[in-house]
Parts: sequence; C-alpha cells; structure tokens
Amino acid sequence: MKPPAVVLLSGGLDSATCLAIANSQGFACHCLSFDYGQRHNAELQAAARVVKALGAAGHRVVDFGLAQFGGSALTDPAIAIPTGGIQPGIPVTYVPARNTIMLSLALAWAEVLGSRDIFVGVNAVDYSGYPDCRPEFIAAFERLANLATKAGVEGCKLSIHAPLIHLSKAAIIRAGNALGVDYSLTVSCYQADEQGRACGICDACRLRAEGFAAAGLTDPTPYRI
Amino acid sequence: MKPPAVVLLSGGLDSATCLAIANSQGFACHCLSFDYGQRHNAELQAAARVVKALGAAGHRVVDFGLAQFGGSALTDPAIAIPTGGIQPGIPVTYVPARNTIMLSLALAWAEVLGSRDIFVGVNAVDYSGYPDCRPEFIAAFERLANLATKAGVEGCKLSIHAPLIHLSKAAIIRAGNALGVDYSLTVSCYQADEQGRACGICDACRLRAEGFAAAGLTDPTPYRI
Repeated sequence: MKPPAVVLLSGGLDSATCLAIANSQGFACHCLSFDYGQRHNAELQAAARVVKALGAAGHRVVDFGLAQFGGSALTDPAIAIPTGGIQPGIPVTYVPARNTIMLSLALAWAEVLGSRDIFVGVNAVDYSGYPDCRPEFIAAFERLANLATKAGVEGCKLSIHAPLIHLSKAAIIRAGNALGVDYSLTVSCYQADEQGRACGICDACRLRAEGFAAAGLTDPTPYRI
Repeated sequence: MKPPAVVLLSGGLDSATCLAIANSQGFACHCLSFDYGQRHNAELQAAARVVKALGAAGHRVVDFGLAQFGGSALTDPAIAIPTGGIQPGIPVTYVPARNTIMLSLALAWAEVLGSRDIFVGVNAVDYSGYPDCRPEFIAAFERLANLATKAGVEGCKLSIHAPLIHLSKAAIIRAGNALGVDYSLTVSCYQADEQGRACGICDACRLRAEGFAAAGLTDPTPYRI
C-alpha cells in the first residue's frame, strides 16, 4: 500500500509540479487547497482540474477567513496588484503568515491520516521574495511539526518535502513536463478572471512567462488581453 | 499609545487569565477566538463575556473547518470524551496541530496589526499532556515566526508570550483572582451544554476543580448535574 502524503495544492504551476513529483515518488497524495479570501479564486477551479488530470487519493478545500485581517494585495481589494515589473524587497502580494497557516492545516490532516510526509511547492530561486518560501523557513517548520504533534512526540519523524525549493522556474517546468503535467490546467496569475485568463503583467505572470521562455517551451497560459 | 498584542482567547480559565496578564502589562489586546467545529461551542460565548468584562482593543472569531479532518474527541462526535479520570499519555481530546494552527492565525493578525507580541495561555504543569503546550513547542514557534514573516525578516523581533506555562493551575487561578478575573464567566468543560454548564467529570473539569481546591478558592463553575 502506498504511504499517504498531504500535498498543498494551489492550482498554480509550482504546486501542480509538486503533486506530480509526489505521485512519482509513490505516495498516495491527499491534496489540500484553501479558500482564504484570495483575489484569484480561479486557482481553486484549477486545483480541481489538476487533481483530476494527475490523480490523487483525495482533495479537500479548507476555508479560513484571512480576508478579515487584510494586509495583502491578494486578500484586500483596496490594495492594488503591482504590475510594473518585479521589484527588490517583499511585495504587497505577500500574505502575512500564509504558508505557516497552510502547513499547519496540512499538519493537522497528516496527523489524522497517519501520514509522515507533507509536500509543498515553495521555491526560493525564481520567486517573489516571500520570507515563507525560504529553506530556513521550511526547516524551522519541520522542527516545529515534530514538537507539535502526538506523532512527533511518539517518534514518527514528520518530513516537510519542498522538492522545488532550489530549482529555477525553467527547471520546475521541465521537471513537470517530463512527468506529464498539463500546464494549461494551472493558473498562476494574481488577478486571473473567472475563466482563469491571466493578466500577463503581475509578478506571477512575469515569472511564469520567463520560466517557459528559459525552458524553451510554449506557455499554454490563456491571456485576457 | 499602548503597543498592540494578539491574545488567543478560548473562553476557558487559562486564556482569560492570560488576557488579564497581557492587559496588566500595558498591551492593547486584540483577542482572537476560533470556531473550529469544537464540541464545546459554549466557550465562544464565554470568550465574548470575558472580553466584555476584562476589556480589549478588539475581538475576532476565525472559522476553520477542523471537523472535516476529525481525529479528536473535541471535533468528532463519534469519539467519546473520556470521563474516567486523567490517564498517562496523550488523550483523545488532543486536536491534531490545533495550537500550531491557532498561533499561525494569530501571527497573521499580529503582522497586519504591526504587533510584535502574541499571548497564549498554554500550561505545561497541570495540563492534559498535549505536545503543543510544552515550552519547547512555544520556543520553536517563536523561532518559526521570526523566519516566516516580513516583520521578522525586517528585524522586528516577534515574541510568543506564554505567561502561564510554568504555573500550577492553583497559581494561575490565584494570579487571575488578583487581577480581577471573574471565573464564573469562563467555561473549561469539554462537553459543556449550551448554557455553559459543566459535566464535572471530563479531564478539563477535573483539572479546574483541583486547581480551585488547591488555591483555597470557591469554584464558581455551574454544573448540570
């Protein structure tokens, strides 16, 4: 029987690749998506399409109301998505503590499933400078997970797998392509419309387009302009 | 102007005392409660009463659907609350990753508020053996918080305050009593009824009753039997 893993799945390019990698490593993948009041809700539809295409042992969507806190361009409609090009520093699309919250909920589900493995598609090379995408953050969360849980206390080592963390966007796309990921199903844009069509000018669109160009592959992203 | 703090508030004895302590230390307390599908929902009403009595800068309730994962007597109606007395080991009332999730959501709100201080009323002396109530868990979360956030990366040291962690239940009650906490407003029971009346036989009821007895104070808990 395949060992169970929890895979965080946003519906974007990175998490779809991460699911393909976890599947290829022989895990029974339980995918976890979130409705946290994000502006780009088209990604939840994309997550469902990706699960159907790649296969998974299960898929759940957990709601948590980050919009009531605001403080990010992704959760507060009053803060505009930057479209002028990637700038140094942490952008306003940073959602406070988002990856900590998502990994915490994944940890809860993993413990109930009896899983020791959590996959997350964070990337610290071609990324937006978010603090919770760095290797030191993942290592600190893994340490916390083993102190926080009954499983950890009882000696079952929990692992946080971040297989994309040291890959360039181009390398991620090549890896996913080799594993049969259909990137036309994924949505990366921070302000995709309801049909999942991308703006082409936000940081996420720019990183994605540059990644496909560097990989020498055609980007199947549908743009609305 | 008082510095802002986020205070986790369940509506139980410990978190009410923790709020009183944070208030006494001069913080403007933003209280955070959770509706996670817990069986003892009377505690949310208790949290609102405690906020009104002790005073706070704000109070929010965040929903997150832990009940869909189950795996705990507090979130799954099919698992009975133990009532036979406190046993060694981690009991079935342990909710997987609960304190990690709650602290993560507190971290998100703290970052939006510009707060560097989070208070949590965990206790590692007269407690139920939960792994996420231990000092090493709190230290690991504080370390994580400073790696996870924009605030941490930019050099604002975030602190997780657990002022009750080394106190006995009797010492907590004496401290709260000295700060004017009205414990009749709080609900500790794992299976309180809708009026907040306690069962008297679950672990939480036993710890509370023993604490009042050891403190030499009258327990104002209303019991339903």
